Amino acid sequence: MPRWPTNALGRLQDAAMELFLERGYTATRVSDIATHAGLNERTFFRYFADKREVLFWGTDLLQAFAAETILAAPSDVLPLDAAFSALEAAATELQGRPAWSRSRQALIAAHPELKERELAKHAALAATIADALRKRGATDGTATLVAEAVLAVFKVGFDRWLAEPVPSDLPQHLRDALVELRAVTGDPTPRSTP
Amino acid sequence: MPRWPTNALGRLQDAAMELFLERGYTATRVSDIATHAGLNERTFFRYFADKREVLFWGTDLLQAFAAETILAAPSDVLPLDAAFSALEAAATELQGRPAWSRSRQALIAAHPELKERELAKHAALAATIADALRKRGATDGTATLVAEAVLAVFKVGFDRWLAEPVPSDLPQHLRDALVELRAVTGDPTPRSTP
Repeated sequence: MPRWPTNALGRLQDAAMELFLERGYTATRVSDIATHAGLNERTFFRYFADKREVLFWGTDLLQAFAAETILAAPSDVLPLDAAFSALEAAATELQGRPAWSRSRQALIAAHPELKERELAKHAALAATIADALRKRGATDGTATLVAEAVLAVFKVGFDRWLAEPVPSDLPQHLRDALVELRAVTGDPTPRSTP
Repeated sequence: MPRWPTNALGRLQDAAMELFLERGYTATRVSDIATHAGLNERTFFRYFADKREVLFWGTDLLQAFAAETILAAPSDVLPLDAAFSALEAAATELQGRPAWSRSRQALIAAHPELKERELAKHAALAATIADALRKRGATDGTATLVAEAVLAVFKVGFDRWLAEPVPSDLPQHLRDALVELRAVTGDPTPRSTP
């Protein structure tokens, strides 16, 4: 089957994942990935700094997108809603390749060096979200609490989405997890109407 | 000034921090720390696997304490309250040496390898808390959301405590941060009385 020549990024990601699953992450070399994708190493390094980065491509884009979306929210939108909406909007883009995402998650769970990288990326995303919220006027405390809370919501929603036999609607899983967050953190005593 | 001979752990921690601040973390060797504490390297390695672990001593204890405290909570205590109470109880122990904690935090912020380690420890603590909550009957989603939420509360409370001119009441800072978490995640529409 001929391959669409301009989609080098996707071809490299697919080739890498195939080899990671067949030969193992450690045994796979950048040159193997490039060859398997029908491309050369130079093209590989146009997209990725190293083998590990194949699994983390797009995280910088996600950070930039989240910050911009939060800053573009009308000023009367509450911090939690602004931050959640940004991740909800990103989710539509992130749900394109569930099989790939599932393999990626399994690889990360199996390799401490990948797990470390994933944690660092999550921390960077939380810091970016908190920073955007502060720029909208949130206090340091609120910004941090909201950023960590929406990332927890994202994590729970994403895991549930991937656990589906056929992962479908990631944004809906995120909305469900947000409802659950509100329930578990909610004041247990009912408020009275004003 | 004579040193209390049995407090080898505290002496090693203090000696390490003094050298980290004077000479830099990277330039300080285990042998320097032991000598500065008036002890030998063998004693150092009785407490710490390496230089880095001086800064992370006690995190395993904290995990075990949190899990036990959560599992000991009466079954009608809500997950968030059980998890929060465990960290609140631990806070009394953790607030003993604010100057040391403040130096530690500055070192971690300045060294990516320490930051990585700190993130891994946080993730392990979150996983332990979530696991204890599941053992009490919480669903996977609730357990993860609550664990991440209380760690966010801890982080915010801890940072505020350390930012005080004279850090005093860590548990109170945690309670204040919990109130703030409830406020930022609360349903914005007031509930009516049943």
